[in-house]
Amino acid sequence: MENIEKVLNFIVEIEKLKDVLRKTKPVGLDRYENSAEHSWHVCISALMLKDYADGEINIDRVIKMLLLHDLGEIDAGDTIIYAAETPENKAKEFAGIHRLFNILPSELASEYIALWQEFESGVSDDAVYAKAIDRVPPLLHNIHGEGHSWKAHNISKEQVLSVNSRIGKGSETLWSSLEQKLEVAVEQGIL
Amino acid sequence: MENIEKVLNFIVEIEKLKDVLRKTKPVGLDRYENSAEHSWHVCISALMLKDYADGEINIDRVIKMLLLHDLGEIDAGDTIIYAAETPENKAKEFAGIHRLFNILPSELASEYIALWQEFESGVSDDAVYAKAIDRVPPLLHNIHGEGHSWKAHNISKEQVLSVNSRIGKGSETLWSSLEQKLEVAVEQGIL
Repeated sequence: MENIEKVLNFIVEIEKLKDVLRKTKPVGLDRYENSAEHSWHVCISALMLKDYADGEINIDRVIKMLLLHDLGEIDAGDTIIYAAETPENKAKEFAGIHRLFNILPSELASEYIALWQEFESGVSDDAVYAKAIDRVPPLLHNIHGEGHSWKAHNISKEQVLSVNSRIGKGSETLWSSLEQKLEVAVEQGIL
Repeated sequence: MENIEKVLNFIVEIEKLKDVLRKTKPVGLDRYENSAEHSWHVCISALMLKDYADGEINIDRVIKMLLLHDLGEIDAGDTIIYAAETPENKAKEFAGIHRLFNILPSELASEYIALWQEFESGVSDDAVYAKAIDRVPPLLHNIHGEGHSWKAHNISKEQVLSVNSRIGKGSETLWSSLEQKLEVAVEQGIL
């Protein structure tokens, strides 16, 4: 098969990410968010917040990571950030990523599997910042949406603060701004 | 207001793009696509097809353009590609872009309004390629979806070929590959 046909097949296959539902509702909407629109949202969020990154980031790599970061969910589904990641689920995501990227020509497959793994490992400055940004929209959805997902999943204030404090590893300024909003949420009784 | 608060307000405001419905359904899904998930899909498509661009493109700028390209629809709504663009609608998009980006700190606003305008003008190599990629998913949606949108809007084969031949300005290889698929669609009676 010609390489361009492989890429077009990949482009059709990843449509499935539009059918993976997450655990929060976009601000103002009465439906759950899907992982494709979430991926767009975190890319543009990362771009607009880049000057607050504490590490030496390359925003172009960060955006590429975030474009791809949820593709493993096509085969594995979405997991709420407060649930322990099981090795079984991680293995499913990993296998899914390999299945998907291997639809592409092999050079592209290797390049982007490596980038996905770098995000997953969460060690490089780019990955730390990307993972920090990935946590922002669900907080904003809850803050602007009566804490709907915190309530539905019985998430405590302590869990929200401890799990999301990792945002501070990517950007202290961003985390301190969000912490203030979370304190207000606590005062308002939505967290 | 602190700059980071402005950025967070912008991040919440652009959630509205998830509520703008387009004219085609993602492959395999029985609902219309929204402009946020479409924006993700064109970014990743542009990335994977970049080696087929005929111009001297900077893929990082192209991706940024495509992240932003539909934000004008938040205030103006989506228009099918086969409809003539009215000056009225363009003015609405333009005003919408200014309203939205001016939520951001002013340096970011100027930078990204300029990038949006570059896309709209469609003259630079980056914009020509970005606009070419923007046309690809609706074709794939129709080809893999019984021509649902072509039929719903009474779009003829001649319209599809003439409007989309501009894909060839961004990538001749890509257009020739899609043309073959469109010929098959004609043979199958879905176009």
